[in-house]
Amino acid sequence: MIPTLTLPETLRSSARELALRRATENDLAALMRLLADDPISAARGDQADASDTEAYRSALLEITADPANELLVVTDDGGELMGTMQLTRIPGMARRGSTRLLVEAVRVRSDTRSGGIGTAMMRWVTDTAAPALGASLVQLTSDEARKDAHRFYERLGFVGSHRGFKYPISSSAGIK
Amino acid sequence: MIPTLTLPETLRSSARELALRRATENDLAALMRLLADDPISAARGDQADASDTEAYRSALLEITADPANELLVVTDDGGELMGTMQLTRIPGMARRGSTRLLVEAVRVRSDTRSGGIGTAMMRWVTDTAAPALGASLVQLTSDEARKDAHRFYERLGFVGSHRGFKYPISSSAGIK
Repeated sequence: MIPTLTLPETLRSSARELALRRATENDLAALMRLLADDPISAARGDQADASDTEAYRSALLEITADPANELLVVTDDGGELMGTMQLTRIPGMARRGSTRLLVEAVRVRSDTRSGGIGTAMMRWVTDTAAPALGASLVQLTSDEARKDAHRFYERLGFVGSHRGFKYPISSSAGIK
Repeated sequence: MIPTLTLPETLRSSARELALRRATENDLAALMRLLADDPISAARGDQADASDTEAYRSALLEITADPANELLVVTDDGGELMGTMQLTRIPGMARRGSTRLLVEAVRVRSDTRSGGIGTAMMRWVTDTAAPALGASLVQLTSDEARKDAHRFYERLGFVGSHRGFKYPISSSAGIK
């Protein structure tokens, strides 16, 4: 949890009002389903398998206990989980000592896409969260296969100026 | 400073032995010169201008005080600063609750490139730091214009599978 952020918050998408709040352990099962509700994530091992519950629970508790990290969920007025994302505040030397806000693991439920939920989430990040944290740059990476997501970020004003490289550490992969 | 990491450490490049250690406030001027010794960084405002010293000092102190961040420097046997990089340990939900190690602001002095310093630095990240921190993924982004750097990361086994997006927050740009 990043204490500086004022949460919960009400987000307005074209269709409705949504609540943006910090994730809790009670969101675990819904978060696992949301991660699995995406073919690219599922191919990487996020399959909402019950045997992975403790690994996800441990990650959730570590994120929520960390003052530089925020795990967020978006719910509709029935309390249903519609989306999630993680924020990490990173102090840095480059760009004259700029603080960055990294956005990871942005997911919106597949049956509610194009409903403005993702836009409302990212607008909150750029217009509310980043200024509140003193960040002068918001950054994220998106799999090259997610062409729709790239168009989405570009429409919001993000510039795809960088290549994102990953190096898997095989010995501990999936174990944490 | 990330306390789990064992530092200082000796790195071996083809040419010589180098010391890898945590940056301190005494490295500030050399770090500012190293950031400015790169045309892409310089174009973004890293020009080693004396009027920016306090912004860099404040960033350095914030990074070194942060238990999830590590600002590293590599020095030769004369104590000259040859390279720098920043590590951030990020717990996450995706990939079954994987912890990631983000590498930012990798710089090697331009007159010592191709001497194996960058390779020795990145090998330490993937082979020593990531396992010590329980990270199952090392990730970084590199400006699309840095074609030599992309080939360098690919030779080391990094996969450029992602697009890196940035969104500048204009109101606080450069101020922190």
